[in-house]
Amino acid sequence: MKTLPFALLCAAALPASAQTLSPERVAALRDAALTDDVAYDITEGLTTEVGQRLAGTEAEARARAWGVAKLKALGFKNVHIEPYDMPVWVRGEERAEILSPFPQKLTLTALGNSGATPATGLDAEIVAFPSIAALKAAPDAAVRGRIVYLTHAMQPTQDGSSYGAFGVVRRQGPTVASQKGAAAIVIRSIGTDHHRTPHTGVQVFAAGVAPIPAAALSIPDAEQLDRILKRGKPVRMRLLLTPRQTGVHPSGNVIAEIPGRDPKAGLIVIGGHLDSWDLGTGAIDDATGVAITTAAAKRILDHGRPLRTIRVVWFGAEEVGLFGGTAYAKAHAGEKHALLAESDFGADRVWRFDSRVAPAALPVMDRIADALAPLGIARGNNEGGAGSDIAPIAATGLPVVNLRQDGMRYFDLHHTPDDTLDKVDPVQLRQNVAAWTAMLAVVANDATELGPVTPGAE
Amino acid sequence: MKTLPFALLCAAALPASAQTLSPERVAALRDAALTDDVAYDITEGLTTEVGQRLAGTEAEARARAWGVAKLKALGFKNVHIEPYDMPVWVRGEERAEILSPFPQKLTLTALGNSGATPATGLDAEIVAFPSIAALKAAPDAAVRGRIVYLTHAMQPTQDGSSYGAFGVVRRQGPTVASQKGAAAIVIRSIGTDHHRTPHTGVQVFAAGVAPIPAAALSIPDAEQLDRILKRGKPVRMRLLLTPRQTGVHPSGNVIAEIPGRDPKAGLIVIGGHLDSWDLGTGAIDDATGVAITTAAAKRILDHGRPLRTIRVVWFGAEEVGLFGGTAYAKAHAGEKHALLAESDFGADRVWRFDSRVAPAALPVMDRIADALAPLGIARGNNEGGAGSDIAPIAATGLPVVNLRQDGMRYFDLHHTPDDTLDKVDPVQLRQNVAAWTAMLAVVANDATELGPVTPGAE
Repeated sequence: MKTLPFALLCAAALPASAQTLSPERVAALRDAALTDDVAYDITEGLTTEVGQRLAGTEAEARARAWGVAKLKALGFKNVHIEPYDMPVWVRGEERAEILSPFPQKLTLTALGNSGATPATGLDAEIVAFPSIAALKAAPDAAVRGRIVYLTHAMQPTQDGSSYGAFGVVRRQGPTVASQKGAAAIVIRSIGTDHHRTPHTGVQVFAAGVAPIPAAALSIPDAEQLDRILKRGKPVRMRLLLTPRQTGVHPSGNVIAEIPGRDPKAGLIVIGGHLDSWDLGTGAIDDATGVAITTAAAKRILDHGRPLRTIRVVWFGAEEVGLFGGTAYAKAHAGEKHALLAESDFGADRVWRFDSRVAPAALPVMDRIADALAPLGIARGNNEGGAGSDIAPIAATGLPVVNLRQDGMRYFDLHHTPDDTLDKVDPVQLRQNVAAWTAMLAVVANDATELGPVTPGAE
Repeated sequence: MKTLPFALLCAAALPASAQTLSPERVAALRDAALTDDVAYDITEGLTTEVGQRLAGTEAEARARAWGVAKLKALGFKNVHIEPYDMPVWVRGEERAEILSPFPQKLTLTALGNSGATPATGLDAEIVAFPSIAALKAAPDAAVRGRIVYLTHAMQPTQDGSSYGAFGVVRRQGPTVASQKGAAAIVIRSIGTDHHRTPHTGVQVFAAGVAPIPAAALSIPDAEQLDRILKRGKPVRMRLLLTPRQTGVHPSGNVIAEIPGRDPKAGLIVIGGHLDSWDLGTGAIDDATGVAITTAAAKRILDHGRPLRTIRVVWFGAEEVGLFGGTAYAKAHAGEKHALLAESDFGADRVWRFDSRVAPAALPVMDRIADALAPLGIARGNNEGGAGSDIAPIAATGLPVVNLRQDGMRYFDLHHTPDDTLDKVDPVQLRQNVAAWTAMLAVVANDATELGPVTPGAE
């Protein structure tokens, strides 16, 4: 391996096909990454020295400063912040209790963009629905002036797909409830754990719909409410939520690069999002995403100058509405992007590799798949999609790859107070770094055109 | 089995030794209990229809009324409440944040009898100690005016013994910190989980020691503070705790009986505690304890009149200072107690059977052990001790048995918001009922004198 930098210097004069790294060299980079400490160091540092990083707040600004210092210290080039402005919603007090028939407190948390109750709280009878369809079908008179309780049957899935299926409860429930005149809405958390740690998450009231208080009960509390409702007596709830919109504030993307040997080969954009929800410390969502991608890029950086430029982006303001990803797409629309990839699904092991590239580029994907197989990663399909932050730029027809992580416990933690460092398994984190390193080692040293593609939904 | 009630009627005329149930009948009662629904029904009902039951509050009074109705409905005799008065402490607001060097909120909860901060909170530098011994050894000047942070290394143990060993941090820490002039104390929760659900629990300031604010950080928050402190910079914390002593209020024990055929044979007291901490719904601590013992007694009741009276006690006010157990001992000191047993360690499977009986009574214990073996329960020793509520009356030299439960996850949940119904495993709950049924089937139909004994500490 010691002769490699010289070999790469020579390779710059060769045709693109000769510039690829041999499978043995890719494997060596991959296996070395199984001892990686950089990803854990970034995750530990960001979650400890900054903690929660709600988009558009001073905490997210501290996180950007932290990121710039860290990326410079790691030796990346062109480290800078690309600012933009965004509206900011912040949490207030949040309390709920059953007033009758069985008085007791319940644990909940406001959803993003929730309206506020009066400062003295609001009392109303609960009307319960098992699905968004049942809520939509209800006559307005059954909902008006009441607190809607909307539940669901989400279970963990390997690929995280149940979040898409059941997340509609959070995304649409508040708007539908408001349209029907509900005083407020509480949902069963969109999650799969059994702890008193409710799951927040964004929802946006449709245009012209009045914001109402909207919150998620922890899953044990939702099940408690189910049992109380099952007794068949009217259930009255008292709700106090005092979140507020604070106006427009600055946010930004943190960007760092490994300049490639051939600018014409296009750049590879990888990353995760720097912001987090405010309840936990954003360890698995998404400190590990920025950490995994940065640690893998660092390994390529230390190995010698790649053919293609690798751009690492720590996106801002993903959770609350993709403001960072949208700003990136606008600012960088004119550049040649060879490939995009995001890590935003925790840090449990990568189990499947999908792609969305032009058919002619599939042999490059095969080489990645071969390099990933010894990590226990299956080759999926060529119908991959773009992670949330890269979706706006990917929509222009850019190719993507997906290193899909095991989702069986992701929604136990995601958007809850429990998203903290202790949930990160260092062994699985390193497997992620190894997978990303192998992927980058192949595509960053290969000039094959990977696109264009028809964009796919993720 | 259908002829048994008649057989028992005949047995009343026979000598005591002939009144024992055959091993086959004990086994049949035991195995039938593996389909028990009564214990789950009690646990579900109490945690749903009452919820948390802090001692001395109106919630505990509702729980007593619930218990009286339930025990009467189950067919128990002499169902009544034995009242007593007690001082009551209630929780207020509780918030903490690191002010510097890394501003962020931490999750904590006040310990029982905690003092309050000023209504505007208090700010102070943290001084950390790894053990109560290190705190005791520190010069007062190092502690004065600061917030003591006291941590520990508790791990789960099968027998729960680590709670005794590390619980000293909670029991003594606040007093020692106050004696040294600390402004407040925060401890790492005395628990073994990794959720943002701090563990409360009682502590009593020693006589003459000024109460100071005393709280427990959740374990992820304690580990976060450890990491922050490890950076070596001074750490300032802001703490707001507004609990208060509310004076003396009524509490009580709920008592129910199965009258035995022979009052001279002494009575068997079994039960658990009705009160709970205020954060969860007291499912494993200790709705399941009253549920398991009541369900087992119900099976004996339905089987036919036992030789000995079985008294089921749902003790009040255990958590905050054994007021119920102490009141019971005072009220019933003059009665002949044949045996005492308590269930107050959750509802995971019973794995060991200990006793503390007179040597001459060991053959009766052997019969119990034989009946328990098919449930996967090992015979332990004759050095058992009394559970907390029965300890005051046991101290007069009364024999006890222990049906010891698996403690590996008990301190993940105990005294936290997570002590909720979903944590109860119905299969293991039934194994408990079967074990208690078998034990009662043997000792309630046997006139062997089981004591006296030298009391043992539990």
